[in-house]
Amino acid sequence: MTAETYEPGRARPVPQPGLMMDFPLTVHHIFRRMQGIHGARKVVTLVDPETGAVTERDFRDVAARAGRLAHALERLGVRPGDRVASLAWNNAQHLEMYLAVMCMGAVLHTMNLRLHGDQLAYTVEHAGDSVVVVESSLAGQFAEVLPQLPGVRHVVVIAEPGEECPDLPGALDFEALLAQERPDFAWPEIDERSAAALCYTSGTTGDPKGVMYSHRSIVLHALAMSGADVYGITSRDRVLALVPLFHAMGWGLPFVCGLVGSDIVMPGRHLKPAPLARLIEEQRATWSAGVPTLWLDLLHHLDSIPPADRTPDLSCLQTILCGGTAVPESLVREYDERFGAEMIEGWGMTEIFPGATVERVDPGDFAVGVGARRKSAGRISPLYELRLVDGDGVVLPHDGVAVGDVEVRGPSVASGYFDAPAATAAAIHDGWLRTGDVGTIDGSGHLRITDRAKDVIKSGGEWISSQDLEVELVAHPAVREAAVIGVADPRWGERPLAFVVLGAPVTETELREYLSARVARWWVPEHFRIVEEIARTTTGKYDKKVLRSWAGANRV
Amino acid sequence: MTAETYEPGRARPVPQPGLMMDFPLTVHHIFRRMQGIHGARKVVTLVDPETGAVTERDFRDVAARAGRLAHALERLGVRPGDRVASLAWNNAQHLEMYLAVMCMGAVLHTMNLRLHGDQLAYTVEHAGDSVVVVESSLAGQFAEVLPQLPGVRHVVVIAEPGEECPDLPGALDFEALLAQERPDFAWPEIDERSAAALCYTSGTTGDPKGVMYSHRSIVLHALAMSGADVYGITSRDRVLALVPLFHAMGWGLPFVCGLVGSDIVMPGRHLKPAPLARLIEEQRATWSAGVPTLWLDLLHHLDSIPPADRTPDLSCLQTILCGGTAVPESLVREYDERFGAEMIEGWGMTEIFPGATVERVDPGDFAVGVGARRKSAGRISPLYELRLVDGDGVVLPHDGVAVGDVEVRGPSVASGYFDAPAATAAAIHDGWLRTGDVGTIDGSGHLRITDRAKDVIKSGGEWISSQDLEVELVAHPAVREAAVIGVADPRWGERPLAFVVLGAPVTETELREYLSARVARWWVPEHFRIVEEIARTTTGKYDKKVLRSWAGANRV
Repeated sequence: MTAETYEPGRARPVPQPGLMMDFPLTVHHIFRRMQGIHGARKVVTLVDPETGAVTERDFRDVAARAGRLAHALERLGVRPGDRVASLAWNNAQHLEMYLAVMCMGAVLHTMNLRLHGDQLAYTVEHAGDSVVVVESSLAGQFAEVLPQLPGVRHVVVIAEPGEECPDLPGALDFEALLAQERPDFAWPEIDERSAAALCYTSGTTGDPKGVMYSHRSIVLHALAMSGADVYGITSRDRVLALVPLFHAMGWGLPFVCGLVGSDIVMPGRHLKPAPLARLIEEQRATWSAGVPTLWLDLLHHLDSIPPADRTPDLSCLQTILCGGTAVPESLVREYDERFGAEMIEGWGMTEIFPGATVERVDPGDFAVGVGARRKSAGRISPLYELRLVDGDGVVLPHDGVAVGDVEVRGPSVASGYFDAPAATAAAIHDGWLRTGDVGTIDGSGHLRITDRAKDVIKSGGEWISSQDLEVELVAHPAVREAAVIGVADPRWGERPLAFVVLGAPVTETELREYLSARVARWWVPEHFRIVEEIARTTTGKYDKKVLRSWAGANRV
Repeated sequence: MTAETYEPGRARPVPQPGLMMDFPLTVHHIFRRMQGIHGARKVVTLVDPETGAVTERDFRDVAARAGRLAHALERLGVRPGDRVASLAWNNAQHLEMYLAVMCMGAVLHTMNLRLHGDQLAYTVEHAGDSVVVVESSLAGQFAEVLPQLPGVRHVVVIAEPGEECPDLPGALDFEALLAQERPDFAWPEIDERSAAALCYTSGTTGDPKGVMYSHRSIVLHALAMSGADVYGITSRDRVLALVPLFHAMGWGLPFVCGLVGSDIVMPGRHLKPAPLARLIEEQRATWSAGVPTLWLDLLHHLDSIPPADRTPDLSCLQTILCGGTAVPESLVREYDERFGAEMIEGWGMTEIFPGATVERVDPGDFAVGVGARRKSAGRISPLYELRLVDGDGVVLPHDGVAVGDVEVRGPSVASGYFDAPAATAAAIHDGWLRTGDVGTIDGSGHLRITDRAKDVIKSGGEWISSQDLEVELVAHPAVREAAVIGVADPRWGERPLAFVVLGAPVTETELREYLSARVARWWVPEHFRIVEEIARTTTGKYDKKVLRSWAGANRV
């Protein structure tokens, strides 16, 4: 069975058909739960970081406003299959766009606001977006690229009441459009394989590539993540959605919360530690998700509060899903000890949604658990299948030892990229998606990522894991951040170079001695570079391209 | 959107196809998790109620044995689409049949061993079963009907090593068949709409009707039930599967446990309270499911143990899913107070799987929760949609007040009955399945069943809920069981008649006074009948047909 492939649209025999309803797995089902039985649940958006003021509306209002928005978009010419783009932070209006665009049968292109202008323009052009909805705070950024986008017929601006938007003259006002329409929309019945959303990967090489999520993939991802062993979100949770709604469907949180009926708290564009700490405390957030840096920054903020001042109480936090990059052990331990919050680690990517692996550990197992799981990006979630292959495409055992390229398949895994046949051909291998990650899988399905394929350091014919070195370095009390790259070496081919941000003084010799006790001697870098800051990509990962080009320019 | 219908096979437009893998939702995915990452989890079967002896094998062994079984069945001529029947209690072999038959593309007909001989024969004949696998303890029962079944080509007996089976001469031995085969089977890739299993409803009227579950419906049900707010089973649970594997796929437990990787403990045919109590304690079962009677009997057993003897410690139980009939408040309270176990209530039926509604309450909310939820059969689960209609098919509001016929739809809901067009036509209404239950739904999706449609008592033009009367009667300390039916009345049309089993002495007058304080005066029955036992159906519900025919014969 392992070699079978799933080709889209491929017919298979139905020896004896089951007699169950042909009920489509579309976002409409989630919409109806939000409109109906979960109608009283809240969407809270932080609007003023100074005062902590929020706006609040219930799911029923959000659904009604989505109906108005669908009418407005239809009036602007949007038809099923058309692409509509959003350029926005996390707020109720963005959630309304999710529901309206997808449920009317159109496709929501969630633009990555951290892309450079040219890349942003490229994605709008490539997606064929006809209507773009922009948040006022991002209007200036969008105005710069709009002249390059002849295909955009309408621009809509989400603004505060009375707020002008001088950057985009002639743009339509989101609230004014909604006010003109009726809340009840005749949502069309659509096939579950229809596209619902389009998200471009930030792409470390070449042009951004578009992942076209189907309704089916979104609903199945939300269902799988609602599992007690996965996200574990319940209707009693208040979920703080820190991960951007433009990253892989906000890690699926809008759909999981809509399905199970948990409140959603959104930070707007205010991701600084101080307003976040206040938001968590005041909104009694119980569950949250975000990249490790954000949680690290929050701790540093709390530590920087003078003893005389009041420190926010974050003990309401019960679960924090961390992902995007390896989670330092110290971070897990601090959140457990200080707030009683369980930090769970997940792994995923735009092409496969987040949470393809998730690691939960019993609070009681903490002492044992952390050591064991620090090395694991999580356990394979329902509806995902993983395998390892070597350079020749030979499948390797799941023994926790064999290191190989990680490939994945499942109903929420991309079968290719939108309108990009060459990228698609490179990504799909024998019906599986190449993730570009390298690692091991043990017999119980724990994935351990040792590196991005392109970040692996090959030294004297053997592999050195840059990620393992980074994790060990960050465990040192004086080291705040660490990024390791391979640099050319005449004798060994490559040798590791470590960039470190310090929190306290330490010498290179001390760091080398520290590492020697923890990794193979030949892994220990000869060279360190102490820096103030390490460059990051738009998704918050270390930007090793920048580090490599610095190393190349400086002939390190 | 609410009026839309989902007709099997109906083509819908795909305005813009998503680009996600066409990965089928089949039992194979669960099988591969059991064989792979959950391979070390256990299936435990109680074999000797006297000594408490169990057999134990891990999921990997179960998967390997399923491979051998598939080879054996293929050798016996079973092909994709063919029906293979099981007549067995809950044990590892039955689970192996589940996996082998479904994953080879054939259809498992789980025979209800509590059906009468003629009905049993009818289902085998109607299903077209070519191979029947029978547990030795049920061989005598099956031998009586076998002569009526010319279509059955092979009978296989599950027996203990060395055990003879004189009732079925010429039958093949399950273990001998497996021993001849290799464990690796080339499982075919099949369409997710293919039938996987066939289960006949016990049918209070007419012939049993067959529900043909598709792979898709089974996988989606397991996914939905794995939700933290639904069954909430995790990989750290040990699940005691008391509900028969022949009832609605064992409430989906084999699939949920296979998906999330929890151990499965099975009682074999030993459902008496004493061995069960021992099994729970010795196997440290954390999660279980079964009808209320069984949990009631277990309590009575514990209470009957002399003070000098040791009482089993059932505090390992954390969650008990109860369903099939209304759960008495006293039962919920006792399991909470004595064992700290949360008893959650669910509602479902063969046609829609169990758990279509499930009610979980925070342990902290107990005092408030019980009162509120005693009236609720649960909250609508993900992937289910419910509505209420009146006698004219008009949709009623979900306000917790309007009483109507409950209709349901979803991907795990039957679209009809196997080879029974008239029954199908009667069951499906405008794309929804008529459940035959009558009740209310509140704005938050809590279903309250007031009656089976056919059990409703119409008195003076108004409805009396037999179930409400039963729940109130059972809450009386002296009443152990209560069943209420309507009997003809010249003045009012119908009046309620209550059958009660007493645990302590009480007079009819006292019961009437007790009820008068709790229900409308005109609901209070004029007549009671104190009995030793109330007839039950094969699924453990009160058999009101029997009660009505007694009342008719006695001109009550």
